[in-house]
Amino acid sequence: MNDKLDKLRHDVYKANMELFEKGLVIYTFGNASGIDRESGTVVIKPSGVDYDMLSPDNMVMLDLDGTVRTEGSNPSSDTKTHLKLYREYEGIGGVVHTHSRYATAWAQARRPLPCLGTTHADYFYGEVPCTRVIRDEQIARNYEEETGSVIIEKMKGLDVNHMKAVLVACHGPFVWGKDPDEAVYLSVMLEEVSHMAFMSVLINPEAGNIKQTLLDKHYLRKHGKNA
Amino acid sequence: MNDKLDKLRHDVYKANMELFEKGLVIYTFGNASGIDRESGTVVIKPSGVDYDMLSPDNMVMLDLDGTVRTEGSNPSSDTKTHLKLYREYEGIGGVVHTHSRYATAWAQARRPLPCLGTTHADYFYGEVPCTRVIRDEQIARNYEEETGSVIIEKMKGLDVNHMKAVLVACHGPFVWGKDPDEAVYLSVMLEEVSHMAFMSVLINPEAGNIKQTLLDKHYLRKHGKNA
Amino acid sequence: MNDKLDKLRHDVYKANMELFEKGLVIYTFGNASGIDRESGTVVIKPSGVDYDMLSPDNMVMLDLDGTVRTEGSNPSSDTKTHLKLYREYEGIGGVVHTHSRYATAWAQARRPLPCLGTTHADYFYGEVPCTRVIRDEQIARNYEEETGSVIIEKMKGLDVNHMKAVLVACHGPFVWGKDPDEAVYLSVMLEEVSHMAFMSVLINPEAGNIKQTLLDKHYLRKHGKNA
Amino acid sequence: MNDKLDKLRHDVYKANMELFEKGLVIYTFGNASGIDRESGTVVIKPSGVDYDMLSPDNMVMLDLDGTVRTEGSNPSSDTKTHLKLYREYEGIGGVVHTHSRYATAWAQARRPLPCLGTTHADYFYGEVPCTRVIRDEQIARNYEEETGSVIIEKMKGLDVNHMKAVLVACHGPFVWGKDPDEAVYLSVMLEEVSHMAFMSVLINPEAGNIKQTLLDKHYLRKHGKNA
Repeated sequence: MNDKLDKLRHDVYKANMELFEKGLVIYTFGNASGIDRESGTVVIKPSGVDYDMLSPDNMVMLDLDGTVRTEGSNPSSDTKTHLKLYREYEGIGGVVHTHSRYATAWAQARRPLPCLGTTHADYFYGEVPCTRVIRDEQIARNYEEETGSVIIEKMKGLDVNHMKAVLVACHGPFVWGKDPDEAVYLSVMLEEVSHMAFMSVLINPEAGNIKQTLLDKHYLRKHGKNA
Repeated sequence: MNDKLDKLRHDVYKANMELFEKGLVIYTFGNASGIDRESGTVVIKPSGVDYDMLSPDNMVMLDLDGTVRTEGSNPSSDTKTHLKLYREYEGIGGVVHTHSRYATAWAQARRPLPCLGTTHADYFYGEVPCTRVIRDEQIARNYEEETGSVIIEKMKGLDVNHMKAVLVACHGPFVWGKDPDEAVYLSVMLEEVSHMAFMSVLINPEAGNIKQTLLDKHYLRKHGKNA
Repeated sequence: MNDKLDKLRHDVYKANMELFEKGLVIYTFGNASGIDRESGTVVIKPSGVDYDMLSPDNMVMLDLDGTVRTEGSNPSSDTKTHLKLYREYEGIGGVVHTHSRYATAWAQARRPLPCLGTTHADYFYGEVPCTRVIRDEQIARNYEEETGSVIIEKMKGLDVNHMKAVLVACHGPFVWGKDPDEAVYLSVMLEEVSHMAFMSVLINPEAGNIKQTLLDKHYLRKHGKNA
Repeated sequence: MNDKLDKLRHDVYKANMELFEKGLVIYTFGNASGIDRESGTVVIKPSGVDYDMLSPDNMVMLDLDGTVRTEGSNPSSDTKTHLKLYREYEGIGGVVHTHSRYATAWAQARRPLPCLGTTHADYFYGEVPCTRVIRDEQIARNYEEETGSVIIEKMKGLDVNHMKAVLVACHGPFVWGKDPDEAVYLSVMLEEVSHMAFMSVLINPEAGNIKQTLLDKHYLRKHGKNA
């Protein structure tokens, strides 16, 4: 163990607690992870442990191929999806998966989250995509890893550095970022804009995505080259 | 009184308090019960007592036929429904009834709760059924016990060990489990998925139950033979 | 001042605080009052005073004709509506008016609150009526008192001892009871069933009032001759 | 620095904290400002500072033309919109901008907020207007200042002393008042009536603005010449 990994365990612990404190998860739901690219070490929440029992010490460490390096707890049941995303997207440093209420409502509706306003545009560069439903043979083969494949298939052609969230149809959101903290922050924002969009489309079913110029202005002001 | 029954009173007390703390009940609403199968003793919340006055000591104990064994308070007015379920389903150890907001909204809409996603599938094996409206002669005869009959009629053909909740039309949810704690846990989950489903069907009225393979994967991963 | 009136001031103070604590009012909104029938004294919340400044001592006392007996604060701007109801309905001892979110949503929709389930039926004997919109000449003449007249007109033919709430169209709910405490309790319940009904009618627009036998069973079990 | 400006910094600090405490903003969202007309000094929240790090001391002071007078933090990114409103409307002393959930839902739906009831009429004299979508050349030229222009264009013909809020299409609400405190108070009210109206129009899509006589009665009772 070294200082860098100690810090990562602490950061991943903090990220998981933030999910709980912001109300995105209840009981033992949800999981945040982080990666140390240099050593290829992923740190993730243990499976089935109550939030008030979490600590940096019981965060699970594993290799990118899934070999667990720590003793005691099992890693979250969604670990293989996290690993798949880390292997595919080399630029990301943190992943969050929740069943947060409003984002999940959209995932269950099997609809992309439209970009209806600047709150959305400040964080996500366009509508947040929704995957197709996972195929039977994928469920049978390796469900959690194939959930990652379905995400990757959907993100093809999109820049994962500017669209850091996806809705998995019939399931819920996956969000990533440069580190666990950003992934949590964006998860909270995704929940907020999912709630707003739910209301907006009921008030006006015709309200569509905002125009490109407004999207560019808001997103690029914060995340573009001159941000 | 013996240690086992003391523990049950404590567990039933804790289950009722959890309902209150999770916001599923207000004022004196709602009731959780548990059973000691060996002695045939049911423990249930007293009727009309504020939550801040509840304690293990004022939980009411009764026989399966309804004979009250403890002095002081009357059992919850829904007791006969609980007893009916305990007599019919020998495998269950706890029952919860609430008028929790979101699940009750579906019961009032007289609609089963569709299984729109994996959050639902993790806890309930398919759509949560909604009973028919109770018949006039049943209301006149023995309303609370007949509410149990209406539930049992609806559950015919379903495995109550894998579908542990039902919506009573025009009324609200009944939930059961291997003990009071599980029944409360599932009541909280039912409320959560009722909220999500409410939003999902407004976003997309065509969103239907998830496919069987996905349901199986999630439900059986947690509750199947190899769980 | 005598003990009975001291107690009433305390009860009215407590009723107003309960409205605040249950989230039915924000800032200085809302008002609860009570009456001592023997002396014909009404006690009501002062106008425009923040909830954290309220105390039994600054509750305003007045006669049924509106003559203020205490010094310092003005009575709530809705006082004349309260007085009108006290003069018309001799059996009531407390009145509450709020702009609570869910009940007001129905009042603004100018729709009676349908009795969709037993939660509603436990407290209100049928659908909660919604008045017609107040007429221009009534607004011009004596708006607050005429708001009472519009309520009384709507309640004609209904038993105010069993339907203790009304929605004033384009405005909000008025609720009454045998004392301020009951009026507050029913206000909280009205809010709860208004929320549930909002969701139920969106899930199933065809869901109508529950049948009379079920309404009777629930309401009369609690409020009938043999309650 | 003088006493008056010290007080203004304190008031603007308090206004920003109130936005946070009332739940209208999360993380670093939202901004409240105030102006001292005598010296032409505007005080506004710094950009990107967490709410728990705010203090009167880090509020940013600037001239009406945008010249920053204090060191340390940058002013909120929406500052130019605030300044534009202060320059155009000489009678206003405070401005608030949030992405509060319910008001923003209406802005994203690109719909004015109808005046459906007296809660609305107590604070806003008629429906709260919604601007047109900002034009591409305005976005390119000077986005934040042109957001102010779009507001001013929409408010033409309206009295900004009696309609103190506007919804910027695809964006969110701007609210103003005689001082920062009033602007915050009205922002909270706008959120409340936006929530109510969302529900009312779903219950009854035909519910329209209340009639003029009722609007006059409520609004002018509080804000008219004889208030």
